[in-house]
Amino acid sequence: MSKIGVHSFVWSAGSSRDELEKALTRTHELGFKLIEFSYLDPKQVDVKWLASRVQELGLDVAISMGLPPEGDISSDDAAVVSNGNEILDRAVALVRDLGGTKLAGILSSSHGKQERPLTRKAWDTSVATLARVADRAKASGVTLNLEIVNRFESNMLNTAAQGIAYIGDTGASNVFLHLDTFHMNIEEADVGLAIRHAADRIGYVHIGESHRGYLGTGNIDFAAIFDALTAIGWDDYVTFESFSTTIVDRDLSLKTAIWRNLWTDNVALARHARTFIELGLETARLKADLVRQAHLPQALI
Amino acid sequence: MSKIGVHSFVWSAGSSRDELEKALTRTHELGFKLIEFSYLDPKQVDVKWLASRVQELGLDVAISMGLPPEGDISSDDAAVVSNGNEILDRAVALVRDLGGTKLAGILSSSHGKQERPLTRKAWDTSVATLARVADRAKASGVTLNLEIVNRFESNMLNTAAQGIAYIGDTGASNVFLHLDTFHMNIEEADVGLAIRHAADRIGYVHIGESHRGYLGTGNIDFAAIFDALTAIGWDDYVTFESFSTTIVDRDLSLKTAIWRNLWTDNVALARHARTFIELGLETARLKADLVRQAHLPQALI
Amino acid sequence: MSKIGVHSFVWSAGSSRDELEKALTRTHELGFKLIEFSYLDPKQVDVKWLASRVQELGLDVAISMGLPPEGDISSDDAAVVSNGNEILDRAVALVRDLGGTKLAGILSSSHGKQERPLTRKAWDTSVATLARVADRAKASGVTLNLEIVNRFESNMLNTAAQGIAYIGDTGASNVFLHLDTFHMNIEEADVGLAIRHAADRIGYVHIGESHRGYLGTGNIDFAAIFDALTAIGWDDYVTFESFSTTIVDRDLSLKTAIWRNLWTDNVALARHARTFIELGLETARLKADLVRQAHLPQALI
Amino acid sequence: MSKIGVHSFVWSAGSSRDELEKALTRTHELGFKLIEFSYLDPKQVDVKWLASRVQELGLDVAISMGLPPEGDISSDDAAVVSNGNEILDRAVALVRDLGGTKLAGILSSSHGKQERPLTRKAWDTSVATLARVADRAKASGVTLNLEIVNRFESNMLNTAAQGIAYIGDTGASNVFLHLDTFHMNIEEADVGLAIRHAADRIGYVHIGESHRGYLGTGNIDFAAIFDALTAIGWDDYVTFESFSTTIVDRDLSLKTAIWRNLWTDNVALARHARTFIELGLETARLKADLVRQAHLPQALI
Repeated sequence: MSKIGVHSFVWSAGSSRDELEKALTRTHELGFKLIEFSYLDPKQVDVKWLASRVQELGLDVAISMGLPPEGDISSDDAAVVSNGNEILDRAVALVRDLGGTKLAGILSSSHGKQERPLTRKAWDTSVATLARVADRAKASGVTLNLEIVNRFESNMLNTAAQGIAYIGDTGASNVFLHLDTFHMNIEEADVGLAIRHAADRIGYVHIGESHRGYLGTGNIDFAAIFDALTAIGWDDYVTFESFSTTIVDRDLSLKTAIWRNLWTDNVALARHARTFIELGLETARLKADLVRQAHLPQALI
Repeated sequence: MSKIGVHSFVWSAGSSRDELEKALTRTHELGFKLIEFSYLDPKQVDVKWLASRVQELGLDVAISMGLPPEGDISSDDAAVVSNGNEILDRAVALVRDLGGTKLAGILSSSHGKQERPLTRKAWDTSVATLARVADRAKASGVTLNLEIVNRFESNMLNTAAQGIAYIGDTGASNVFLHLDTFHMNIEEADVGLAIRHAADRIGYVHIGESHRGYLGTGNIDFAAIFDALTAIGWDDYVTFESFSTTIVDRDLSLKTAIWRNLWTDNVALARHARTFIELGLETARLKADLVRQAHLPQALI
Repeated sequence: MSKIGVHSFVWSAGSSRDELEKALTRTHELGFKLIEFSYLDPKQVDVKWLASRVQELGLDVAISMGLPPEGDISSDDAAVVSNGNEILDRAVALVRDLGGTKLAGILSSSHGKQERPLTRKAWDTSVATLARVADRAKASGVTLNLEIVNRFESNMLNTAAQGIAYIGDTGASNVFLHLDTFHMNIEEADVGLAIRHAADRIGYVHIGESHRGYLGTGNIDFAAIFDALTAIGWDDYVTFESFSTTIVDRDLSLKTAIWRNLWTDNVALARHARTFIELGLETARLKADLVRQAHLPQALI
Repeated sequence: MSKIGVHSFVWSAGSSRDELEKALTRTHELGFKLIEFSYLDPKQVDVKWLASRVQELGLDVAISMGLPPEGDISSDDAAVVSNGNEILDRAVALVRDLGGTKLAGILSSSHGKQERPLTRKAWDTSVATLARVADRAKASGVTLNLEIVNRFESNMLNTAAQGIAYIGDTGASNVFLHLDTFHMNIEEADVGLAIRHAADRIGYVHIGESHRGYLGTGNIDFAAIFDALTAIGWDDYVTFESFSTTIVDRDLSLKTAIWRNLWTDNVALARHARTFIELGLETARLKADLVRQAHLPQALI
């Protein structure tokens, strides 16, 4: 069976206990094995309760986030870097306290449309800072998964190849790539080739359509992606992410420019997504087997 | 809901009552709405019983066949043509007696690898003969659906465009195209464009993979095919067909050159196929809707 | 022969006479039939000279632009709208004075990442203003071609369906869609279906890769796009557009977030693009013919 | 530069000196680097002259063939096997005498539609015989490249995986796969994956469209194939093959069931093919480079 997750914003952008409970229940009912939350503030969310509910339902959990401008660890301003450092440490702690192992998202610079190209100094500052965060995260058994996003959401890591260079510069062993098909469709020369090239540095995968709506109703060649994931032996989570104006987190919706209502019924959406991914991965596995089977004539068996 | 059928040879190549019953039951259990049988000899099969079972299970039924060399209605030999004429009439009667409306398959010439190109005389003989069969079939409410097959199985109708010309020559109103994605993958310039071009002459559709095994594990771009079927408003049956050395009809297996064992578990195969087609058609419909929706900014609604 | 154009920023972002001359010469030498300029200020460019050079080289010309925030015709501020009105009128005049017929680009609102969803009032203001611009442009024989761009560059017209609704609201007969494959790859459910749906409202087409570099080295299925253009009988210009950090227009590079150096040799790039488009369109035409040819057996001809 | 060849039947099926000269000249004029001939009888063709013309034009040469039923080395009849043995030895000698290194085609059994599944004995007889032919061919510096063909043209080697098993059984070091995209489109689960899997056993490649006509006007995803060839580092020949009723070799046309006239102007066809393959391989190389380039922000270079 494939390990398929879902981003909680498919269910709700809220973090009240009721909203979180609904998100957990829906996730479980629809057969997903992991729920991804955007960073939740422990001052507002009962982390212990959430961790216990996650465990009771037999789910895994991941946390994702995008650094805010005031916590950009590539900044020239040491106070901003220091703030980012703390934000990342708190996120690592949250992952640990929830019983998870993966922190994902835009961790190396701030999330949003930038107004100038990246400088070398910014890269170096980011690498040095993240390396220290990663070192501390090891003790918690948490990996940092750097989301590779499109040019309009960051000017730093837009391709897997850039991410691999960044990871190399950190020298860390618990920093990986967080690949997302929505972003890859814009930035990579070829999504399948990029997955093959990045193979052993991939830590987390988002499955999203080119317009962020229903899988299969956009321009992404998911069969090629499932083939590539099968080829590299990926057996970890793939997490479904989708945005519509139906469910709005004001900050994230603006940064990701969600202007259209691509769906209203999130249960129908999620059910379709789970079937789509499950069937796609199963088909890719059958195909990969078929390519290798000699199928010698019957009498030879 | 999509109208999805299955060819009985997925279940069994036999025609004993037990084998037919098993085929019907499996078809029904797995959610298919139509079962297609290769021509069944009324001397060996209790047609009344079969018709009643089909009806009891709420299924539709179709019959397919390929003319044998000794019944080739394009032959120079009048006795052979006459024999073909009778074979077709009997098949029409079988469709009617089973409560169906569609006769499909290679009806315009013999099924198998030919050793010379078609002559004009053969075309004309075939057209004239089939036109008369079609005329008689009208009284039974049965349509003749001419399967467009690859070059190795016939030298007459290899493309939809050829089939449209043939239908035009018959002047009949109950003769249509029986398209099959396995054959189209070999012969058509573009499967989607061919479906669009043939739109109102299509009467029946086979969904088969390029190697005749599991859907999605071959070279056919089924998303493009489901898009084209959606674009032309196809709301009639699409029938899954697959061959493996697991289930052998000696005559058909040789004509279709089935040398490899592409599957053994036909229940797993059929379940996968139904999900694949259902999800594919649903996704194509969602996509077609999306292309047409203006999605005006929220405040404008 | 296909009518293939090229955006002048492939050659240079400058507007000195030397730079313009080089752009014109390269365009002509490499076999393009149209050159597209971003809006050129008649106070700084000798329009008469440019028009004569365009004519001498047997080229056509188009002008594109994106409205600036201070000229956003969807603004609540009447002075801003009025300014936008004048900017558009001046651009129409430039097209006319250069001997062209097409004004293209982001004409209905300002170009750039927006920080809030569009309001109905903004839509209405834009429609009313553009309708008047279009009316005046008629006298100059100039069409307004509204570029459909991705969510990060505008919050107004992201899909062809939105553009069709907008055009309908203007009631104008000289307003069309300016489609661009780079943007369509992000926003449309299916690029080919969107082209088919928008068929008679398309006025101008940009061919750009998913990452804005070499054609064919990204995720766009250009064969499907050339098929769709062939299916709707498109015989007007398709214009190649590509951006790299090699050639920088500061304002446009920031708005379009060009952070990577995808090419340095623009002659090699342009030669590849022209061959790619020419071969692609030729192949699509051959394919479309093939689908319709009955290919009756030789003896029948 | 890519090494692109062409099958002589694009030019002519004849073997008179005039016809061979025309084929050589056209091949050279249109920029192909290798010409492939179907086996030529040294009793009817002046091999010395042909070898010298090939050399004068700076061409490489390959020979292909399909064993006839009376020379089937998998036969139960020792006399037939012995005849096949001699046919293969003569073909090896022809390759050597023409200055080539590759014998290709259906070398392990007879070419044509079979009427029964292969037996183990047939496989073993074929393997043992071919191993001896290969051993003798070594002295001539000739490789045997086993064409993997579709089910209707052989019942022995229909997939690359079967070919790899066969090669393994021969134990020979100069036996390789001859892959052909036309056949792969029918038999392989995925053409790109099959190429990757077979990587180091591939000796020769045919590029043909799904219907054997103009490249790009059928159902084959050539971009994926060029990507796979690039991924495995293929730098040897790819040879264009196409059949139409315009040029007929009676025996081969019947075995390959060529009933349709897919082209008449072979110069236009070949020019299109060369551009298509050259551009396709160049684009695949650019794409592969792009996937690996880190594109670090400008200031970092």
